[in-house]
Amino acid sequence: MWLPLCCKRSQTAADRRAPTPEEHNDVSTPAPVADPAVHPAWLPDAAFAPLGSRRIAVEIPARDWSTLSAQVAQTVRAEVAAAVATHGGAVVDASDAPDVALVVIAHNDQDPEAFTVAHGGGVTRVTAADPRGLLYGLFHLVRLGEAAFDGSAIGEDVERHAPATALRMLDHWDNIAVHPVMGQVERGYSGGSIFYRDGVVREDLTRVARYARLLAASGINHVAVNNVNVGPLETRLLGDLLPDVVRIADVFRPYGIQTHVSVSWAAPGRLGGLETSDPFDAGVQQWWADAADRVWAAIPDFGGFVIKADSEGQPGPFVYGRTHADGANMLAAAVAKHGGLIHWRAFVYNHEQNWRDRKTDRAKAAYQHFAPYDGTFAENVVVQIKHGPLDFQVREATSPAIAAMPNTRVAAEFQVTTEYLGHQKHAVYLGRMWSELLSFPYWGEGSATMADIATGRGPGGRAGGFAAVSNVGDDVFWTGHPFSQANLYAWGRLTWDPTADPIAILDEWIGLTFPGLSAAGRQVVHAILDESWETYEMYTAPLGVCFMVYPHSHYGPSPDGYEYTPWGTYHFADRDGIGVDRTVATGSGYTAQYPAPWASVYESLDTVPDELVLFFHHVPYTHVLRSGKTVIQHVYDTHFEGLERVEASIAAWEAAAAEFPADVAGRVTERFAEQLGSTTDWRDIVNTYFLRKSGLPDEQGRRIY
Amino acid sequence: MWLPLCCKRSQTAADRRAPTPEEHNDVSTPAPVADPAVHPAWLPDAAFAPLGSRRIAVEIPARDWSTLSAQVAQTVRAEVAAAVATHGGAVVDASDAPDVALVVIAHNDQDPEAFTVAHGGGVTRVTAADPRGLLYGLFHLVRLGEAAFDGSAIGEDVERHAPATALRMLDHWDNIAVHPVMGQVERGYSGGSIFYRDGVVREDLTRVARYARLLAASGINHVAVNNVNVGPLETRLLGDLLPDVVRIADVFRPYGIQTHVSVSWAAPGRLGGLETSDPFDAGVQQWWADAADRVWAAIPDFGGFVIKADSEGQPGPFVYGRTHADGANMLAAAVAKHGGLIHWRAFVYNHEQNWRDRKTDRAKAAYQHFAPYDGTFAENVVVQIKHGPLDFQVREATSPAIAAMPNTRVAAEFQVTTEYLGHQKHAVYLGRMWSELLSFPYWGEGSATMADIATGRGPGGRAGGFAAVSNVGDDVFWTGHPFSQANLYAWGRLTWDPTADPIAILDEWIGLTFPGLSAAGRQVVHAILDESWETYEMYTAPLGVCFMVYPHSHYGPSPDGYEYTPWGTYHFADRDGIGVDRTVATGSGYTAQYPAPWASVYESLDTVPDELVLFFHHVPYTHVLRSGKTVIQHVYDTHFEGLERVEASIAAWEAAAAEFPADVAGRVTERFAEQLGSTTDWRDIVNTYFLRKSGLPDEQGRRIY
Repeated sequence: MWLPLCCKRSQTAADRRAPTPEEHNDVSTPAPVADPAVHPAWLPDAAFAPLGSRRIAVEIPARDWSTLSAQVAQTVRAEVAAAVATHGGAVVDASDAPDVALVVIAHNDQDPEAFTVAHGGGVTRVTAADPRGLLYGLFHLVRLGEAAFDGSAIGEDVERHAPATALRMLDHWDNIAVHPVMGQVERGYSGGSIFYRDGVVREDLTRVARYARLLAASGINHVAVNNVNVGPLETRLLGDLLPDVVRIADVFRPYGIQTHVSVSWAAPGRLGGLETSDPFDAGVQQWWADAADRVWAAIPDFGGFVIKADSEGQPGPFVYGRTHADGANMLAAAVAKHGGLIHWRAFVYNHEQNWRDRKTDRAKAAYQHFAPYDGTFAENVVVQIKHGPLDFQVREATSPAIAAMPNTRVAAEFQVTTEYLGHQKHAVYLGRMWSELLSFPYWGEGSATMADIATGRGPGGRAGGFAAVSNVGDDVFWTGHPFSQANLYAWGRLTWDPTADPIAILDEWIGLTFPGLSAAGRQVVHAILDESWETYEMYTAPLGVCFMVYPHSHYGPSPDGYEYTPWGTYHFADRDGIGVDRTVATGSGYTAQYPAPWASVYESLDTVPDELVLFFHHVPYTHVLRSGKTVIQHVYDTHFEGLERVEASIAAWEAAAAEFPADVAGRVTERFAEQLGSTTDWRDIVNTYFLRKSGLPDEQGRRIY
Repeated sequence: MWLPLCCKRSQTAADRRAPTPEEHNDVSTPAPVADPAVHPAWLPDAAFAPLGSRRIAVEIPARDWSTLSAQVAQTVRAEVAAAVATHGGAVVDASDAPDVALVVIAHNDQDPEAFTVAHGGGVTRVTAADPRGLLYGLFHLVRLGEAAFDGSAIGEDVERHAPATALRMLDHWDNIAVHPVMGQVERGYSGGSIFYRDGVVREDLTRVARYARLLAASGINHVAVNNVNVGPLETRLLGDLLPDVVRIADVFRPYGIQTHVSVSWAAPGRLGGLETSDPFDAGVQQWWADAADRVWAAIPDFGGFVIKADSEGQPGPFVYGRTHADGANMLAAAVAKHGGLIHWRAFVYNHEQNWRDRKTDRAKAAYQHFAPYDGTFAENVVVQIKHGPLDFQVREATSPAIAAMPNTRVAAEFQVTTEYLGHQKHAVYLGRMWSELLSFPYWGEGSATMADIATGRGPGGRAGGFAAVSNVGDDVFWTGHPFSQANLYAWGRLTWDPTADPIAILDEWIGLTFPGLSAAGRQVVHAILDESWETYEMYTAPLGVCFMVYPHSHYGPSPDGYEYTPWGTYHFADRDGIGVDRTVATGSGYTAQYPAPWASVYESLDTVPDELVLFFHHVPYTHVLRSGKTVIQHVYDTHFEGLERVEASIAAWEAAAAEFPADVAGRVTERFAEQLGSTTDWRDIVNTYFLRKSGLPDEQGRRIY
């Protein structure tokens, strides 16, 4: 029996043609480059019309700016110049009656990224203490459009805007060498990498420059440029490939973005020829210090290192009997004098678990491995913890580890790429999911939330910020599904303000990205995406039971796919019931990792929220949920309804598609065809699986195969 | 979540060193080349001692031999010369009192591969009508050892040996270009290809020469050298790579082996630039005729083409609305004047089946596609049909298509490589399985068997012979697991004589391959392998239900692995029962494809053999088998016993391992460690799966997780 090549990447228009002269990277003029082959995402020319048609004064005093701030200042001027050149406005002096004034002034704001806005006497005025704040203020005006200048959105009172945290990060799981199984971009569903191609860093980084601009317009200011699974070739980014990192950093810098690199714990051996990677070894310490000196000498505003250690086969300090704190602190010491950061991922668990052992619970792993070391990590270590205890599932509990380390800088980690959420073939907007997670109050109603902890507003007052895996590739639409751009945009906006309304962000994205759309057309996109996360949850794994996807691809329904594997993710379905007993009373005891009131809320079947019932409890199919439905009827109902909702989205889309640019319409239509087939598979396979197991018929007598 | 590179091939000793001068191919001296890095398999020097220590006369009259026969004559002389040089005998004239006489004489035997033996007056005499027969006679003496010369195994009466069929074939699924998913050898578990490496035909074909010798000593006389899934590069074997096929044929010819090539139906387009592959198109017919002329001009004794058309995504005549007979006959016309054959595979089915559709039954496909065209295939077409209707499962029914085409030359196809039978990591000897299948009487007790049909002893009297997929690679032991050599050996021996006792063949292989072993040591290998097929069946998919393996690798337990896929192979297990209803009365009607008595034997639960009950019927777990056990208890019992038998094999092995050469012992020990872990997984996962589904406890209260 033969298998076709599974991961063949579809060629994009960009693949098929030679690079145009405009694509060649020129960091000295970071202003937008028009290339019809790349979709402009949320920065189409039209978005700049309200600003660009006005008289604009830019005042940035000469000062001893850092290279970063100086280059951002250039960017602000170039953006303004390009906008007025396109839309008929003018760059004027401050004294020459401008409509818009962008001003850097010495004031008390300690945050170089903050800005203020006010409107009075016909002038919209943006101030900041640093050009970086001014750039964000500029994009704020672009987002507001006409409302920024007519007094409707910006009033006379000075309004300050500042990011919730200085660490608003995207991680790229891009490989330089194409991995035989994982490809050019691990868990990437948008073509190849914008950084690398077939074993080398791209000569032409034009797409990176354009990406940097999109990120700055959404709020991102840190990017890690290579996969956390670091291969031998990627390790050389600290060595002979360092000049390539310099080139990438040069492209990000004009947009206020600092560059980070993922490193391998094995680097001292691979690059330095050392026999050990023991963090207590003086030679190892020296090797990392030298490496850091080398990197920062080349890139003085380099961000730092990201590391996945002792995880899924990656090497780490455990080999030497050292703790994660030992490992992280050694690296932290090497980068401290440069102001560098170590992002240390907490995704540590036993990936060779024995499914027969029902006492071990992978959900407990991050807490077990990290909470005991709270307070022992150096100040420039950020412990990066996934939002849930498993792995970016459509529905899982929040990670208790995030709340267990008040004396540690904790970053909350998310995934913009949709590894388990439809591979950017399904239209799934994640803003609502992220917002719900970010606002989870770890100590009960009104208490500090996940976002509070990550931004230093939690009990310990330490901030690690936010990090997420990017969903961008060299696809013409950046993200495969054009609508998946909304996730990238929303991620940036939520890192800036995690309390923002995700649906307002969605509408903002729709307005910017599809400027020509009628109100009805905008409403169609809104309706398709608004509750699409809940829809995806409906037709996939039910009630927090997680996974049920194909193990390798993580796409499509395979209810028992993980059931007898070493991955530690099981649902234990039998003919009577399903779910994972994580209670203290009879299960793995995981609920005890939560503070009150959640420990008891989750412990009891009477109080556990319906959507997490199978995450915390093993129950009979006949168990009655708080909704009044049995588990089995809930499964049937949601799977029928999930497909109906997708069908309704498709019907709405078909009626509106003609309003969209032909390339967007073509791609979205193609994705919906795939989503419809996939969703039908999900409905039928999950329903059949549960019917065969339980023997319980659907109350409504619908067809289950 | 990350996945390690799954298919990384372990380096063999042969990979790690440069080729030695001896390895360079020299077809003019085909005698054995000693290379300690390659295991001698069943032709160690010691096997030649009884022969080589004697006085041997070789008489081959000068005649107008074909190149093939002439080169085989050279081989006979070279083998004899090498044997006496090593073991102290002598080559003598026939008049000089030889102990052994090898003589080609003109007699009435029409079969150039037949030979006679007799022993009298102290002389063991082998005669044949052709040097090819003499070569087989020579290896017959080697196999018999001392008994060939002392009157014990060969007596005074002249005894004729002739192969059951002239078509005794091995198919290689080797790719020239490494396939990104399937690798260098599709379903190969023995390292790389002996023919190809990384996109080119190997310069050094020494291993192929050695392989040819091993095959001749077991009985094989036809080899197809590339994968039936033919890629663009492999298509060029008919074009600019033809000189490489010539080189390979030159290496096989001295051992009486004819070379075949697998071809793509799309070749006229790929190579010839034609717009169509329609078999009714005159240009297409001409293109194939020209291709055949080209190939036979280069290799006058070329065997023919193997083709997989309209199967698993391979192109074929269906595209043009033509039948398989149309397609095959067009190719047959192109090769007929050269005496060439077309092996046309009957492995045609819908691999995009909808699992929801329980009326479609993949098992019916070969019969449906081919039986209606019986009698319409050209005389030089061999329709090659898998032994079972599915895909080389550990236990499936015999293919009814084989018995449905009396007016067609039918080849029975087998698999020496263990795609579904443990990947040459498990010790599984297949001789008994093949023997059972080959002797299956299609019209009931005493009627023509599968082997009879394939050898022209069936109702229509037409012979297509035997074909099987090879299990050989560039591994130092040829076959990964040293004990898997026994399968290659047994396949050759059974093609020569399908009625031979597979256990006698096993003992013959043990004796030849491990000449230094004590009787106890031989008994250990015998005990490990003897009933190992039945053992493998015990711990894997029960009672003919098939599959339950991981879909991509076809290794390891995944009970629902295929259940909701498009592959057409389902078991329909629910909480009440399991199995595929293929009856006429209530199921797919597949049983009607069998002649009497099998149609009714399989149709009725009262008469269906236990081992196939789930292949033909869907039954409750509580169904009582003819053995007196319930289905569920049979599952539990066989899975516990299967592991116990493997453990017993390992215990026996450990006691005897020291007797074996260190390299063999090391490899076997390593494989047993893997087998033990894998078998334990099989036992526990299958038992747990059935317990969870059925809720029925083990009568003996053994531990099921």
